[in-house]
Amino acid sequence: MPVVTIKLAGTLTREQKKKVAEEVTATLERHAGKPASYTYIAFEELPDENWAIAGKLLDEE
Amino acid sequence: MPVVTIKLAGTLTREQKKKVAEEVTATLERHAGKPASYTYIAFEELPDENWAIAGKLLDEE
Amino acid sequence: MPVVTIKLAGTLTREQKKKVAEEVTATLERHAGKPASYTYIAFEELPDENWAIAGKLLDEE
Amino acid sequence: MPVVTIKLAGTLTREQKKKVAEEVTATLERHAGKPASYTYIAFEELPDENWAIAGKLLDEE
Amino acid sequence: MPVVTIKLAGTLTREQKKKVAEEVTATLERHAGKPASYTYIAFEELPDENWAIAGKLLDEE
Amino acid sequence: MPVVTIKLAGTLTREQKKKVAEEVTATLERHAGKPASYTYIAFEELPDENWAIAGKLLDEE
Repeated sequence: MPVVTIKLAGTLTREQKKKVAEEVTATLERHAGKPASYTYIAFEELPDENWAIAGKLLDEE
Repeated sequence: MPVVTIKLAGTLTREQKKKVAEEVTATLERHAGKPASYTYIAFEELPDENWAIAGKLLDEE
Repeated sequence: MPVVTIKLAGTLTREQKKKVAEEVTATLERHAGKPASYTYIAFEELPDENWAIAGKLLDEE
Repeated sequence: MPVVTIKLAGTLTREQKKKVAEEVTATLERHAGKPASYTYIAFEELPDENWAIAGKLLDEE
Repeated sequence: MPVVTIKLAGTLTREQKKKVAEEVTATLERHAGKPASYTYIAFEELPDENWAIAGKLLDEE
Repeated sequence: MPVVTIKLAGTLTREQKKKVAEEVTATLERHAGKPASYTYIAFEELPDENWAIAGKLLDEE
């Protein structure tokens, strides 16, 4: 039942998402005892213009 | 004041969203006593490549 | 794979959550073709002091 | 460490996001004592068709 | 219709939330043209143990 | 800038969160090229009564 949301700037390739999903799911199984079959992962990719750190949009930096 | 977020793989048609929004709002009014006028619903549609279950991207299954 | 998050002010009774969960899951199956077994619902209950509408905390209204 | 998510209907211009990010970050520094360098802001822009109030999609209103 | 979620480590006082809610709502009205009456803000306060930066829980730092 | 939210039923021990945070941060650095110092992780622990799968609250199962 863990639902993991990974929100990030820019995009990942399909291969990167695949690797990240595999490892995060394995981590939750190994250390938190959550069966892999219950783990959902959602990748939310936002353009740099839609993120700010320290009050500045990422694309200004 | 309920804010309902429905995150799903793929897309829904406008008609599907309309039906879902009507019913979910009515459900919250009927069973949780939340006036319809305060209920916000947001549909977040993500491509299959951005979802994983059991460590596999949906588009691998 | 729908993940539904229902964020609200105050608390619901267990019975209210049960009814809401049943109906929202059924709605997504009926109108959006999502098998019930894939639907996750999370209730996030926040105190009135942690919500604002129109710039005022709910507990000031 | 505040993570601020601003989910809205329609889109903002880059200039609007810049202004909002600056002010929200300053507000959290001034009133909540959160150093600007730790504040992340994400703008999530959804089409009107993906939002409902009072059980009606925004684009029906 | 903006829904603003402010997720942070630790807690804010009621007075801090009130000030933050007022200003964030005013910012969205002034710069993004969103009427105050449609703006919802939710404060999600998590203990330091439930946040990590750079792979370390906040309470280890 | 990745913000990872891990929402789950029940609670994790501090030690479990520490391990999960370390590994998820390392995974994002290794496979997605995200510097550890930018990765935020938030653990959201909800009681079983606040989660449903397949229309049933977890505590009914």
